[in-house]
Amino acid sequence: MLLNITVYNMKEYETLDSLKNLVRAIPDYPKSGIMFRDITTLLSNPEGFKATVSGLCKPYKIGSIDTVVAIEARGFILGGAMADRLACGFVPLRKKGKLPYNTITQEYTLEYGTDAIEIHADAIDTNARVVIVDDLIATGGTAEASVKLIKQFSENIVGASFVIDISMLGGRQKLEKMGYNCNVLIEY
Amino acid sequence: MLLNITVYNMKEYETLDSLKNLVRAIPDYPKSGIMFRDITTLLSNPEGFKATVSGLCKPYKIGSIDTVVAIEARGFILGGAMADRLACGFVPLRKKGKLPYNTITQEYTLEYGTDAIEIHADAIDTNARVVIVDDLIATGGTAEASVKLIKQFSENIVGASFVIDISMLGGRQKLEKMGYNCNVLIEY
Repeated sequence: MLLNITVYNMKEYETLDSLKNLVRAIPDYPKSGIMFRDITTLLSNPEGFKATVSGLCKPYKIGSIDTVVAIEARGFILGGAMADRLACGFVPLRKKGKLPYNTITQEYTLEYGTDAIEIHADAIDTNARVVIVDDLIATGGTAEASVKLIKQFSENIVGASFVIDISMLGGRQKLEKMGYNCNVLIEY
Repeated sequence: MLLNITVYNMKEYETLDSLKNLVRAIPDYPKSGIMFRDITTLLSNPEGFKATVSGLCKPYKIGSIDTVVAIEARGFILGGAMADRLACGFVPLRKKGKLPYNTITQEYTLEYGTDAIEIHADAIDTNARVVIVDDLIATGGTAEASVKLIKQFSENIVGASFVIDISMLGGRQKLEKMGYNCNVLIEY
């Protein structure tokens, strides 16, 4: 029996504002006119990091999730901690050409052109109960592509957790209209 | 007070062999003659993932580590879970050009040519107690570059944890000769 006993007290953190204050705003990155939300300052703060993981896990109970699917690369940081807390498996969604075994690919549209993400062809058990995680949802292009990939294995997408929602870009609404519960900690 | 109370029972997992059995061997990847060790099959197994995180954290006590520094990208998955378990901060080391704020860069040698990793210039507190984590140590080039970056902030590198050591390539020995404790779960 490999499983360790883990007891968590996932009580609500005090205010979402205290998390928001730990996010650094970087103007004109990656290009002029964009205000980049840098979560590295949140992650490097021990209390901020713990509270973030607690918030991302809050809707889900240990034993009710089989797989956390995380999107490269910042999603990996949060997804690893979530899978450990929820005592479930971890599956990476990676940029094209990064996974070593047989993969399934899903393209998605960017402002100019397209990009693609991949998952291993045997990554998720049939009908597994899945949570998606990423640091940020903006237009929702990557999240929608993730949903399409996961649905090739399982219809049981229990929800999606994001640290940040850039609400004017509508990605969260798009996911919710498709019927998926979104759990967001900070809105801009 | 944001910090949640977390109680862990980090008891030893049964045998390292059970973890090794969950790693998939992929011949001739990324090129002919290389046997790639694919940990995605280990990470997607709930008991395997939990035991891996327990093993990586084993030498370190909650309250004795300030920062887990993880190397992009697979190191992020493990480092996020470790920082959560150890109730400390998480700092990413990324490929060149991926971090949004002021960075410090360290080059390192590959078989042919060089590569570089970066850290935010304000990422780690002076004299912080640091643990390095990555999925695998081979020649130790990336790990050595990580040490050089971290030493610009702190001499307190408590140790380095890796899931896999490709022992014939000597990276672990190199780090240990430099005086750093290595914690390895699986050897090839």
